[in-house]
Amino acid sequence: MSSTVESSTPSKVDVLVIGAGPAGLTCALGLAKAGVNVRIVDHSPTKVQSGHADGVMPRTIEVLQSHGLADALLKDANQVYTISNYNYEADCAGRVTMINEPTARYPFAATQNQGVMEGILGDALLKEGAVIERPVRPTAIDLSTDENELKDPDAYPIKVRVKKLNEEEAAEELVHAKYVVGADGAHSWVRRALNVPMEGEQTAHVWAAIDFTPTPDSNFPDWRNIATVNAKDVGIMLIPREGGKIRLYVELGSEDGLVNAESGRLDSAQFSPDRLLEIAKKAFAPFVLKTTPENVEWWTVYVIGQRVASTFSVKDRVFIAGDACHTHSPKGGQGMNVSINDAHNLAWKLAYTIRGWAGTSLLDTYEFERRSFALELIAFDKWFAEGFSAKARAKLIAEGNNVDLPGPLEAFRAFSSVTTGIRIRYAPSIITATAPDKTDENGPYTLTVGKRLPPQVVLRVADRRPVNVQDLCLSNGRFKLFVFTGDVLSADDIQSLNKLTTDLDALLSELPKGLLEVFSIIKAKDDAITYMDVPQTLRPHWTSIHFDGHASGPVYDAYGINREGALVVFRPDGYVGTITPLGEVELVRQYFRQFLK
Amino acid sequence: MSSTVESSTPSKVDVLVIGAGPAGLTCALGLAKAGVNVRIVDHSPTKVQSGHADGVMPRTIEVLQSHGLADALLKDANQVYTISNYNYEADCAGRVTMINEPTARYPFAATQNQGVMEGILGDALLKEGAVIERPVRPTAIDLSTDENELKDPDAYPIKVRVKKLNEEEAAEELVHAKYVVGADGAHSWVRRALNVPMEGEQTAHVWAAIDFTPTPDSNFPDWRNIATVNAKDVGIMLIPREGGKIRLYVELGSEDGLVNAESGRLDSAQFSPDRLLEIAKKAFAPFVLKTTPENVEWWTVYVIGQRVASTFSVKDRVFIAGDACHTHSPKGGQGMNVSINDAHNLAWKLAYTIRGWAGTSLLDTYEFERRSFALELIAFDKWFAEGFSAKARAKLIAEGNNVDLPGPLEAFRAFSSVTTGIRIRYAPSIITATAPDKTDENGPYTLTVGKRLPPQVVLRVADRRPVNVQDLCLSNGRFKLFVFTGDVLSADDIQSLNKLTTDLDALLSELPKGLLEVFSIIKAKDDAITYMDVPQTLRPHWTSIHFDGHASGPVYDAYGINREGALVVFRPDGYVGTITPLGEVELVRQYFRQFLK
Repeated sequence: MSSTVESSTPSKVDVLVIGAGPAGLTCALGLAKAGVNVRIVDHSPTKVQSGHADGVMPRTIEVLQSHGLADALLKDANQVYTISNYNYEADCAGRVTMINEPTARYPFAATQNQGVMEGILGDALLKEGAVIERPVRPTAIDLSTDENELKDPDAYPIKVRVKKLNEEEAAEELVHAKYVVGADGAHSWVRRALNVPMEGEQTAHVWAAIDFTPTPDSNFPDWRNIATVNAKDVGIMLIPREGGKIRLYVELGSEDGLVNAESGRLDSAQFSPDRLLEIAKKAFAPFVLKTTPENVEWWTVYVIGQRVASTFSVKDRVFIAGDACHTHSPKGGQGMNVSINDAHNLAWKLAYTIRGWAGTSLLDTYEFERRSFALELIAFDKWFAEGFSAKARAKLIAEGNNVDLPGPLEAFRAFSSVTTGIRIRYAPSIITATAPDKTDENGPYTLTVGKRLPPQVVLRVADRRPVNVQDLCLSNGRFKLFVFTGDVLSADDIQSLNKLTTDLDALLSELPKGLLEVFSIIKAKDDAITYMDVPQTLRPHWTSIHFDGHASGPVYDAYGINREGALVVFRPDGYVGTITPLGEVELVRQYFRQFLK
Repeated sequence: MSSTVESSTPSKVDVLVIGAGPAGLTCALGLAKAGVNVRIVDHSPTKVQSGHADGVMPRTIEVLQSHGLADALLKDANQVYTISNYNYEADCAGRVTMINEPTARYPFAATQNQGVMEGILGDALLKEGAVIERPVRPTAIDLSTDENELKDPDAYPIKVRVKKLNEEEAAEELVHAKYVVGADGAHSWVRRALNVPMEGEQTAHVWAAIDFTPTPDSNFPDWRNIATVNAKDVGIMLIPREGGKIRLYVELGSEDGLVNAESGRLDSAQFSPDRLLEIAKKAFAPFVLKTTPENVEWWTVYVIGQRVASTFSVKDRVFIAGDACHTHSPKGGQGMNVSINDAHNLAWKLAYTIRGWAGTSLLDTYEFERRSFALELIAFDKWFAEGFSAKARAKLIAEGNNVDLPGPLEAFRAFSSVTTGIRIRYAPSIITATAPDKTDENGPYTLTVGKRLPPQVVLRVADRRPVNVQDLCLSNGRFKLFVFTGDVLSADDIQSLNKLTTDLDALLSELPKGLLEVFSIIKAKDDAITYMDVPQTLRPHWTSIHFDGHASGPVYDAYGINREGALVVFRPDGYVGTITPLGEVELVRQYFRQFLK
């Protein structure tokens, strides 16, 4: 029998991340890259091996690309371009495009096992010198109630007791942390330990998910597309996966012996892959998706719950992210995406606070931005879950209602900001300017405060190499200033260019070193220009300066910027912080003063 | 003192590759992927660490992509789009596009240390289970003179004695090989051991190459482009490299103390990086490319020789490839490219012969195709070397001649088939049909017998994923049959489609299993079509069938194929073997009968 041994001295860490799923890993990666002292623990001895989340949406791929990880994800991932819709009642079938976002850099959903995503993020984390500690479980958390301690940026007001699970002499350690991130899933221990309630409801929808490799002699022509099937009163959704695998979501009902008569709870002992395949097969007829038991990789049964945590942080010291703060239907393929983007939003804010560059008001913007998004996600999920439930439709019809629930494409379109992640617009705050937003309604390509930088290809002046502007906005913890110089070399602009340079030099000297990176985009396309023709402030490195002139179209026009130019500040997570006229460096200074110390 | 110990029993191998540079590795990789029993030895204890070849041209990148290796190369390689031309005498400077091939999938030259290329190919080889044996040097080679043995496909008519160089007790081994590939460089031991003469001449052009990292305060605006400088009587060429490095080629003359007075030979002891930089600096003025001695990575001094081996094989049993059979100026950035493409041409032919699928006439096509190319390369190099020699220009001017040597762009354009590798067209032979070649002059995109498959994007029917047709022609040792079905589902075509299917089934059953892969490209773009609407022969796998319908333009038009369709056979190296009308399976059969047993 093992005894509990406590390590002799408590250890200190800036951030303790609890949970090494996609949210926890993304957060730890962002922190480690910013040089923050971070530890990450997970109770499981290994990463996810099969099943769980599998959908990676366009904006999430952009975020991975900003970490240099999109290629690794896309290497073996499946790409979904099409949704097929089979409605047996209406005897109709059709195919529609899945991603309808003209600015999507990756115009598809990637499907890939969550374990692969965890491997990619974990490898990147390892390169930053951080190792996932596992299996390690937190057993107690204590957050100081001393307001002075909570306000002291140098204090470690959180004490977490963690237990190593795989040692003969199970060791406990007391960790003193400045901040804790609970990225520990839908049943979050951190959330419950701090008594953060979930708001919302369990639905009546019960579904099964089953992952398998079909045998090649299927007669279903759409098994490489997302396929939704409304058959009698069983809803089915098929997700094509990497390596020729598929996932099948199957709707279950009371006739399937769902509920344990004694406990009144969902009784997964009633189920097996064979049983689930049998239900699916019946509903799927006349089509067949053959498989054999050894080709079933993973399965689960679940009730859809649609809930959001009442708060995403406690005292700006403990934060929860990912499934820990929102649960919903997995069929929309949102879970892993929202989790990664929660963490992407949080990491740089923690880093700036820990460096002493910003105060706690910056941390408040995490809940402000991500909780509104989670509520949007639930609104989408309600529509989506109803629309896909054959049982809900059957019930409505039986009650004499007119069934006009949205089809899958309508649902995806209506909630495009949620489903693709592309259209999300963070509301005005200390990090998202309120004005000017005149560019907001000028079309999908236009740069808009609060939205992400849409991809465009520019030509690097020094070597005429085409470069996607998104690849200038790397996730390196820095703000980016894009100087749209206008026609920089026209004679009448030289004077204002010199003033701009002087003003920018002053601003850069005031800001913490490394906070702001400068890139320039020249409107002119002129082969006589070299990168040395532009003042050095606008080209700190030979890779900093670009032409607007690639065949793909004029970038200025696409962004709604005229030849008078503009200054655009991007937050470290790639969202537009502010846009000002070219000469107005003072407005940029004011923007930073809102949240920097 | 070590004694020589011979291993007790001679070993046998199908192919022994001597030399693990780009040519040897590419050959070994192609053979290993085809399941051939191959060994590769190299006298050097490690791969190249710095210097040597650094230019990878568009066609070579396509070949790497066909092995799944382009991403690995491009990850950190520099990309060159522009050539800058400075002529101090004429006081002019200008920039021109480097790659002027509309069908280039990669419209740039990649520059990257040869060692990285060797690492990428070596890793791929390792995945196939083959280890580079090093340091191992051949000490004797004996090719049987028994004609019966030479003709016996099961014989091992070559005996090679190889010596392990890094063992205390230096061991020798006697290897019996069916085939030997000498990819052992310009001073090829294999070539000399078999008395294969080089034809051609040493030039009077002496150059130095020096690799270094410049300090950031250079005032030369074109250091990230290829830059040619004709200054007084010193020619200079600058190549931008990976990681901000550059290579400088500097022309040397008699005034530089080149020749050792006693030996009459090039005296590299006269040189040092400092000395070379001093010569370059003087010629480069008023521009400056600062560096410090510790930033000099590699340097060499060489006389340009322009020579081609009189034969590329001895008795169809020993082959030479790469620098072993052609030497020329390195400044055109061709060496590594021609070497890789030699080996790419040879590997599948050896594999087919060893499998017993083809006779030795297939092997004869290696010299037939690649020696003509090497002669073209020398013709280019003569023009190129003269054009870049400031000393040659000065001499011509002193002699009262009119200097109208080509500029670099003219040279690159005139020899585009050599420089980019894109326009190479193999002449008619048993593997390259003579007819029909009516499509030859229809423009750069048109499919042409003897040329490589130009890239085009099609939509995969099963999931509507955009796919580059080049990625269907993987380097897996197989011929590919592209069935351009025309408008396959129109009523009047069904009957001919059924006949085509029957004929193709018959052909496939006659050919060795695995020799021919079938892909279909449908002309119609019709959302109602599924991949199951087409006979299974035309879609052996769900990834085999595609639409012509991507936004990038109609593929049929680009290839010069009308709605009546066509059959196109691609050789395992990606070159068009034959094109026939859609119904003429018999012509395809005849094509294969020319070289298959």
